[in-house]
Amino acid sequence: MKKTILMLALASNFALADEGMWMPQQLPEIADQLKTAGLALDPASLTKLTEFPMAAVVSLGGCSASFVSDQGLVVTNHHCVYGSIAHNSTPENDLLTNGFLANNITDEVAAAPGSRIFVTKAVDNVTATVIDAKTAKLSGKKRLDAIEANEKILVADCEQDLGHRCTVASYYGGLEFYLIKQLEIKDVRLVHAPASGVGKFGGDTDNWMWPRHTGDYSFYRAYVSPEGKSADFSADNVPYKPDYHLNLASDALEEGDFVMALGYPGRTNRHRLPSEVSETFQWSYPNTVQHYKDTLDIIARETANNKDAELKYASRKAGLNNYMKNRQGMLDSFADSDFLQRKTAEHQALTQWVNSSKSNKNAYAKDLAAIEKLLKQRQQQSRAEYLLDNATPRLLTLSRALHRLVHESTKPDAERKAGYQQRDLPRYQSFIAGMERNFDVNVEKAMDLHNLTKYASQSKKQRNAQFDQAMGIKDNMNQQQLTALIDSWYNATGLTSLDNRQALLQGSVADFKASDDFFVKAAIALYKTDLKQEAADEQLAGKIQQAYANYMQAKIAFMQSKGQAVYPDANSTLRVTYGNVKGRAHGNEDGNAWSPFTTLRGITAKATGEGEFNAPQKQLEAIKAKQFGQYKVDSLNSVPVNFLATLDITGGNSGSAVLNGKGELVGLAFDGTLDSIISDWDFNNDNTRSIQVDSRFMLWQMQQVDNADSLLKELNIK
Amino acid sequence: MKKTILMLALASNFALADEGMWMPQQLPEIADQLKTAGLALDPASLTKLTEFPMAAVVSLGGCSASFVSDQGLVVTNHHCVYGSIAHNSTPENDLLTNGFLANNITDEVAAAPGSRIFVTKAVDNVTATVIDAKTAKLSGKKRLDAIEANEKILVADCEQDLGHRCTVASYYGGLEFYLIKQLEIKDVRLVHAPASGVGKFGGDTDNWMWPRHTGDYSFYRAYVSPEGKSADFSADNVPYKPDYHLNLASDALEEGDFVMALGYPGRTNRHRLPSEVSETFQWSYPNTVQHYKDTLDIIARETANNKDAELKYASRKAGLNNYMKNRQGMLDSFADSDFLQRKTAEHQALTQWVNSSKSNKNAYAKDLAAIEKLLKQRQQQSRAEYLLDNATPRLLTLSRALHRLVHESTKPDAERKAGYQQRDLPRYQSFIAGMERNFDVNVEKAMDLHNLTKYASQSKKQRNAQFDQAMGIKDNMNQQQLTALIDSWYNATGLTSLDNRQALLQGSVADFKASDDFFVKAAIALYKTDLKQEAADEQLAGKIQQAYANYMQAKIAFMQSKGQAVYPDANSTLRVTYGNVKGRAHGNEDGNAWSPFTTLRGITAKATGEGEFNAPQKQLEAIKAKQFGQYKVDSLNSVPVNFLATLDITGGNSGSAVLNGKGELVGLAFDGTLDSIISDWDFNNDNTRSIQVDSRFMLWQMQQVDNADSLLKELNIK
Repeated sequence: MKKTILMLALASNFALADEGMWMPQQLPEIADQLKTAGLALDPASLTKLTEFPMAAVVSLGGCSASFVSDQGLVVTNHHCVYGSIAHNSTPENDLLTNGFLANNITDEVAAAPGSRIFVTKAVDNVTATVIDAKTAKLSGKKRLDAIEANEKILVADCEQDLGHRCTVASYYGGLEFYLIKQLEIKDVRLVHAPASGVGKFGGDTDNWMWPRHTGDYSFYRAYVSPEGKSADFSADNVPYKPDYHLNLASDALEEGDFVMALGYPGRTNRHRLPSEVSETFQWSYPNTVQHYKDTLDIIARETANNKDAELKYASRKAGLNNYMKNRQGMLDSFADSDFLQRKTAEHQALTQWVNSSKSNKNAYAKDLAAIEKLLKQRQQQSRAEYLLDNATPRLLTLSRALHRLVHESTKPDAERKAGYQQRDLPRYQSFIAGMERNFDVNVEKAMDLHNLTKYASQSKKQRNAQFDQAMGIKDNMNQQQLTALIDSWYNATGLTSLDNRQALLQGSVADFKASDDFFVKAAIALYKTDLKQEAADEQLAGKIQQAYANYMQAKIAFMQSKGQAVYPDANSTLRVTYGNVKGRAHGNEDGNAWSPFTTLRGITAKATGEGEFNAPQKQLEAIKAKQFGQYKVDSLNSVPVNFLATLDITGGNSGSAVLNGKGELVGLAFDGTLDSIISDWDFNNDNTRSIQVDSRFMLWQMQQVDNADSLLKELNIK
Repeated sequence: MKKTILMLALASNFALADEGMWMPQQLPEIADQLKTAGLALDPASLTKLTEFPMAAVVSLGGCSASFVSDQGLVVTNHHCVYGSIAHNSTPENDLLTNGFLANNITDEVAAAPGSRIFVTKAVDNVTATVIDAKTAKLSGKKRLDAIEANEKILVADCEQDLGHRCTVASYYGGLEFYLIKQLEIKDVRLVHAPASGVGKFGGDTDNWMWPRHTGDYSFYRAYVSPEGKSADFSADNVPYKPDYHLNLASDALEEGDFVMALGYPGRTNRHRLPSEVSETFQWSYPNTVQHYKDTLDIIARETANNKDAELKYASRKAGLNNYMKNRQGMLDSFADSDFLQRKTAEHQALTQWVNSSKSNKNAYAKDLAAIEKLLKQRQQQSRAEYLLDNATPRLLTLSRALHRLVHESTKPDAERKAGYQQRDLPRYQSFIAGMERNFDVNVEKAMDLHNLTKYASQSKKQRNAQFDQAMGIKDNMNQQQLTALIDSWYNATGLTSLDNRQALLQGSVADFKASDDFFVKAAIALYKTDLKQEAADEQLAGKIQQAYANYMQAKIAFMQSKGQAVYPDANSTLRVTYGNVKGRAHGNEDGNAWSPFTTLRGITAKATGEGEFNAPQKQLEAIKAKQFGQYKVDSLNSVPVNFLATLDITGGNSGSAVLNGKGELVGLAFDGTLDSIISDWDFNNDNTRSIQVDSRFMLWQMQQVDNADSLLKELNIK
């Protein structure tokens, strides 16, 4: 299969120059385009994960980063290390507000618990192992179980090399599978973060916006055991010595220059079917946005006079606002676009092509028809379960998960359901502990009441009888009755206490059975139904996997027949996207355009001395005094702060190293723009721009404002 | 002298491609540049005022316009015909709000009284007549009197050709003089104006701003007697048949295209001396802005509960706001610039050059030293008189002018002081009549009190003894005393009544003497002092004229020695400026740029349904329905509304025809941008942009919204 993909790339004409999150191994096949665009390195060198520059690119799990010194120094976004800055902050020593700088290596502090640096060591196509001859003949749940079993064997085998984390990633909607082996660095330390007035300058107001002036950079250092192995935090650990690291650019970056971003994009949906587009944009997202709005209203109301509760939900509130802005942005773009019509037309063309020859028909027609029906089935089920899912209290969700975990734990580790293995335990532990800081009974009750009112207002037939029975829900309950019901749940649970939750995690099946906790009893009462539902879901999912993979194969073959290349949707694996530094002809309003660079002037213009625009006084003074150091760009008459490029990125790319044609670091990707978020579904060359912090700004700030001299020396800056 | 200028232009290297308000006769000398820039017409054809296209370009006196049909149809800005629309509006038939369209020629209505269309027929260099051998030897007041006398002879002689208005215009600070002969069309009729929600869309908020969406166009028609002569309004008059008119462009205007504006720019100050720059920007403008602010505060306070008074000062208020925004805009630009330093350095270089050779020294050194002293003298005088000028009541100014007029009227017309001749009478009449709609005693008293308080607080020595005596001002008067004094003035005058003012205009010297009106008596009391002051002013002005002209000659010679061309500062005479359609790399904020075109989308985005952004419903519906007619531009996916160009324009250019390289009409200039208003003093290529209404928007609006079918037919639009 791999060969087919590479050949496709070879045959492509690349009508869309800037679209594409390429797997490193695909790059030699687009070597001509890369050279034309301005890449000076040999494209073949980019395929070698253990050589320069790929060996310098790492994942933080959800963010991207890169080594920038031979002493394990890692640069990424400020927002990617935010939790670690917060973790080390105290009211007396507020690192978020003031920033943090370890003047020498002994001053470096441990990152937040769970912080990781993943160094990708190998990526192997394991499709033939995951879908072996036996599995290929299976369907439904049996197929899914076989795939999971094959994956678990691969992962377990790979993780025999201690200190490594292995994953089987699915590409092209389950058509291909790759085993990814990563060195897991567990001793991560915070080295330097600018003040939030720099690193988070603009806050939520500027989030997804241009013009932008955010100094979104920070530094970690990777530590390993004296023997050079992955190790938990220890004073004896030493800086990790990567084989390769990136160097800061010596050439001035200018408009039009070639750039590429190396990182770990999370998820895109460019190969979706028309029905998935319509369901998402016409049902799912609008409902989600409304649900987020309702939830935010409840949080605002219930935490109004309760500082403790307000702090507990601050992070959730920020997240909901963020998602709501994101989803609404996509909905707005969708409303203005002909995306669904194009998608439908493309799919019609595919269907015609499939029906145009006997061999195509034999190969794809059945699955092409099947996938539509199967997706419809899943959509109907999602709609039916939507209010139920919303109405499920968090403590019930927790109880169900822990109850399932305790059942799975009775099996040998390798036979346990994925997600309930030994390797997953730390996640449960941190989830349980985290509730101490994000759970308030009164707020949860108010959300439960809101969601339960919607659920309970449905007819008996629309509701779930087992859920109703377990939770005590009856027909035609009024608000008073529902309020009393919810009160009764929380009066009969101890799970609001950390000790009880931790005890449950340590408990046995017998301990669960003996519990008189309301939510534990409800979880046990629902267990059989849950397993049945899971089996049904997996039966459907197995059918979908099979049909979807073949739909993708048809699509790839069809596009190949038109000479067009196909790169897989993002799946949190290492990708390369290339483009150039470029403004945009249409800006925030009719008659405005976007310049490719912002400058220090914009910081002064936006600075208010408080809140989201609280630029440090020392920085403002340096700008006023035109202390530009060696970072002034004459054409801008200032130092560049952020820049736009045509790079194809998404969530997960945050912190991605952006390199020039020589492979030198020129900036860090950290955001897209609100009116092009829909590019996760529908890439638009005219519209889509990535936002980077310019490395010259980072160095200027470190040199002229933060006096990070030893770090600058380590970065080889004179 | 003319030859010298033309030779200069010939020798120039035109470092500043877009700067330059060229006299038509200079254009052949920059033919190469014009052709390179994209002019397809023969540059020589632009010098012929009675041929295409120059013959089509007219002045409205303060605005520019052009013929666009062989039936005397004239297109200009909506804001240039605003008074005529208002004049024809009634509460029942509000043409300002609804727009006006004469569906056929008999529906056309008379423009506001005093409306004129001036067709330039001849421009002749009369320097040798104005500064003849005898005059050249004179100095001070005698020199000025001789110049005025020579000019009056030229004008009177020229105006022997009835129906023409003749003017002697001064170029290069009094170094050269041209006699300009214009056909004066007095029967001007309003043909079509869009609704203010189109023609004034954006109002004061968008004034001097980009992005802009103003449909600033309207149509007049020129009428003459059946014999084709200039005539007052008459039903017997017929449309004027110009020899040439402009045609609408057939080619699509695009970014980068050559454009030129033909019009009558009012006044620029690019050849000023450093001391004039510092006096203006460091004393005069800051004081003016403060004075405007104070005056606006008084108007707001005094008209707060008086609708009649509010309406009377609405126009003045708008004017003051406009000037204040303008002056403050210039002050802001000046504060951010090194203009004064550059000006000073340039002048030092000039001084060095003058002192570098004996012949230069002999020719210029004396006047170069003299002009600095003379200007200093005038500046000191202006500062000394500043508070006195502000404190002079309007009725005193009127009385003085009418009293002077009645004295001058005793002489033969040709011997009267310029400004007090027969030809000036209509101005006095309309001024006197206009006061009915712009004068309220209480508001004037409040302004008088404010200004008099400042004046009276000066020491006796700083004050003007004659003024004090005539007006009853004494040392150390307090607010109560000043209030009582002002009340006493207005209690003793009849000039607040139109009849009395008109009677005064008709009166004789004896009538004035017999008057017991306070302000008339004050005017008489001040008469001798005024004449003495005028003579002293003229003595100084005559010296300045002489020295300034020679300073300009030195500057021209100096620039010639460096191979640089010199065009004269604007002086309300016909000029040509060329450049191209161009956005701007820096927009309204750091990281934004300006696109060269706005589109209909921006109208929809800005429309609020009221006030300054009250776009007509029918227009919004046409936009929503994408009824673009033939005016859609694919790259914009809409109809262009306004566009930016690098044309060098200023006040007076409003309504200027903007032509493409083939001489076809592509738009009308109507504004500049606030941050480049300082270009009147200091032209900056990067910054300065003119704003035009795109002719495609005008035609679209006429076709799709206003159904101006017969007009479109006359414009030869299918």
